[in-house]
Amino acid sequence: MKRIAVDAMGGDHAPQAIVEGVNQALVDFPDIEVQLYGDEAKIKQYLTATERVTIIHTAEKINSDDEPAKAIRSKKQASMVLAARAVKDGQADAVMSAGNTGALLAAGLFVVGRIKQVDRPGLLSTLPTLDGAGFDMLDLGANAENTPKHLHQYAILGSFYAQNVRGIAKPRIGLLNNGTEETKGDPLRKETYELLANDKSLNFVGNVEARDLMSGVADVVVADGFTGNAVLKTMEGTAISILGQLKSSIENGGVKAKIGYVFLKDSLKVMKSTLDYSSAGGAVLFGLKAPVVKSHGSSDAKAIYHTIKQIRTMLDSEVVNKLVQEFVAKEVQVDD
Amino acid sequence: MKRIAVDAMGGDHAPQAIVEGVNQALVDFPDIEVQLYGDEAKIKQYLTATERVTIIHTAEKINSDDEPAKAIRSKKQASMVLAARAVKDGQADAVMSAGNTGALLAAGLFVVGRIKQVDRPGLLSTLPTLDGAGFDMLDLGANAENTPKHLHQYAILGSFYAQNVRGIAKPRIGLLNNGTEETKGDPLRKETYELLANDKSLNFVGNVEARDLMSGVADVVVADGFTGNAVLKTMEGTAISILGQLKSSIENGGVKAKIGYVFLKDSLKVMKSTLDYSSAGGAVLFGLKAPVVKSHGSSDAKAIYHTIKQIRTMLDSEVVNKLVQEFVAKEVQVDD
Repeated sequence: MKRIAVDAMGGDHAPQAIVEGVNQALVDFPDIEVQLYGDEAKIKQYLTATERVTIIHTAEKINSDDEPAKAIRSKKQASMVLAARAVKDGQADAVMSAGNTGALLAAGLFVVGRIKQVDRPGLLSTLPTLDGAGFDMLDLGANAENTPKHLHQYAILGSFYAQNVRGIAKPRIGLLNNGTEETKGDPLRKETYELLANDKSLNFVGNVEARDLMSGVADVVVADGFTGNAVLKTMEGTAISILGQLKSSIENGGVKAKIGYVFLKDSLKVMKSTLDYSSAGGAVLFGLKAPVVKSHGSSDAKAIYHTIKQIRTMLDSEVVNKLVQEFVAKEVQVDD
Repeated sequence: MKRIAVDAMGGDHAPQAIVEGVNQALVDFPDIEVQLYGDEAKIKQYLTATERVTIIHTAEKINSDDEPAKAIRSKKQASMVLAARAVKDGQADAVMSAGNTGALLAAGLFVVGRIKQVDRPGLLSTLPTLDGAGFDMLDLGANAENTPKHLHQYAILGSFYAQNVRGIAKPRIGLLNNGTEETKGDPLRKETYELLANDKSLNFVGNVEARDLMSGVADVVVADGFTGNAVLKTMEGTAISILGQLKSSIENGGVKAKIGYVFLKDSLKVMKSTLDYSSAGGAVLFGLKAPVVKSHGSSDAKAIYHTIKQIRTMLDSEVVNKLVQEFVAKEVQVDD
């Protein structure tokens, strides 16, 4: 049985969306058990599942504007902190929250803890490509500064994730850079390029440019946390802006535009669903001793369901255990 | 008379698009004079203007796949190099090319030369916002590494550009960061924040996130060249991907989608024109002794025309001279 600790109080639509997503997941996945941390009375309003689910009541929760590290230290009874502690104490195998991202990162690092050999766990998400296959990118902002060694570790982490969770046999690893030529970039990129090219366990395909990410130029894209964060937010901002612009062009286009919209509606839906990647689950703080997954703050029940599904796949494939073995083996090699 | 040296041989549609853009600019702007560098016979095929235009014939040109610094050194008679040299020798006041970006940056730095007090000229473009006003961003990739001092200089450069070329009285300067709070970012961002906040000549509005750029959160956005380049290319890639996806959704949507498209066509054109920012001109390598402007490689005659117009505004407003005075004054202050 896979035991998942869920922060029922985090996110814009908590606890309703969280609990409804959990209800559906419990129906579809008979091998999971869910612990819901939060306000018992509120959770019960929405909980229809009766088996393999428990509520651990707490009145305290972390707010979206709380200062992350401080909140983790001072709000020891918060639903998110208790859920993370359950993993540390061996009561649960993974933790999920749609709440304060920084606080979940802090809880992951300081409560769940990192794999000893991974210096800086990275935030990983599966992002959309035009062919629907998607790509994994990390670090998306867990760290503001990274070394070549961190980026090498991200390549290994990303490769394991794509292989075990997304079922890609030999994931193509790309290094995000300001040009595709081998000699491009700053010292961080140049040194990382060397490390990746010399690691024969990786299917390294070289430098990739941000312009080509949505064309599926790699299965895993490695970036420092600052740049990865900027790229992720640019993708989000540009997509939202263009779709918003499309909407307002239609709304301000008079009767003609509205007639056109009626006919085009289905095609626009196809387009939107290609861009909507919530079915790939949430963002994983990867490199920790257990899966710690952040679902988007605006998650609805469907997004929560997919995040639970993603966690189940992570547990089923034992990707974290495999990672530990890989890093131990690499350490032994280096020590030889 | 404003004398503009034009590389007629650079870009995907050279020399036709270049010469046709110049023809139109010469009609509309009686205060400019254009020197066309390149293959005389080919240029003459398209040149309709007869006054205030000269052709300086050369058979050599820099190709898009030439190694930039090497090309500048070895192809001394290339159209781009001769155009840059005309500025250095006082024969022209500005240079424009739609050719190899790296080579133009190298020609700008090594032939035209930087303003003494500007350590690292930055690549600046005006990018689209949803309200149509646009924002200027630099450095977009002239440098792979930057210091806080460089970023401070970019803020001054961007502010002068927005004020003089775009007519914004007190441009709002934002620092691209991984969060809006004052304490966010790596040491580069934190030190830059201090410098910008303490420079009372700037209208600094604090940190801005990549997600909000197209919403017009600032008039000028300051970034290091590596991140700026990644953000620019992500914007381009995402926009192209979404519009391509929209197109294929319509094409594969059957008769219904095609009928819808006929009705919606005008609204979609409005949307595309908001995103098309070629009317703002090309990318300026800013911080040099004269305007050096790169028009997009795929530029058509209209884009070339707008780049010439932009250069004329730069010369008319004497933005480069004003910059020199500003940096000399700042240097004197520091020496006090």
